Amino acid sequence: MDDGRVLEMITPVDTDTCHEPVDLVPMDRADAERAARMLKAVSDPTRLQLLSMIEASPDGEACVCDLTKPLGLTQPTVSHHLKILVDAGLLSRDKRGIWVWFAILPGRLDAIRALIA
Amino acid sequence: MDDGRVLEMITPVDTDTCHEPVDLVPMDRADAERAARMLKAVSDPTRLQLLSMIEASPDGEACVCDLTKPLGLTQPTVSHHLKILVDAGLLSRDKRGIWVWFAILPGRLDAIRALIA
Repeated sequence: MDDGRVLEMITPVDTDTCHEPVDLVPMDRADAERAARMLKAVSDPTRLQLLSMIEASPDGEACVCDLTKPLGLTQPTVSHHLKILVDAGLLSRDKRGIWVWFAILPGRLDAIRALIA
Repeated sequence: MDDGRVLEMITPVDTDTCHEPVDLVPMDRADAERAARMLKAVSDPTRLQLLSMIEASPDGEACVCDLTKPLGLTQPTVSHHLKILVDAGLLSRDKRGIWVWFAILPGRLDAIRALIA
């Protein structure tokens, strides 16, 4: 009992702290700002529904013509939402003739699956 | 060449569609609305940084007293952001003495890891 451990245990703690301080390192601010922008783009139920349909499409790509009917929305409305997802770096856009096809960018697939699970 | 295949290939497609229609089923609307609310809560760089620190804390829980300094923010500001994450169903909150501890709810851990990766 004279080895100092008991004394250490009953030493009053600093009133500003509740325990031994832990050094925590937050994620990099620039990364956090980039991720927050991406998340803002998907913080919308219609855009999550669009992502879920594209993710489940044959070959992982969907034509805008297949995305309007299941949601009961007009094509301009769907195109508006898709543009936000493209601008956020989540979808690729490929024009073929008069129609446009959308696919989830490979690096974003796991994160999007986790979001819509 | 008289088996009809060539004829089928050159049959003009319906001008309203670009290909054989695909039946896509979007995620359930109520689920999408719930997920969108959760995502809105994390669409903020400071909240992402808080989640990253809590996720990396010993035993997966952090005292609010450890979360202020690394971000250079006041405790009321940090508490405000933590409340939004608690209300969104992402964090649990446990008061011990004068301090409050936060942990990521188990069911949300994978999704949050994907977001802050």
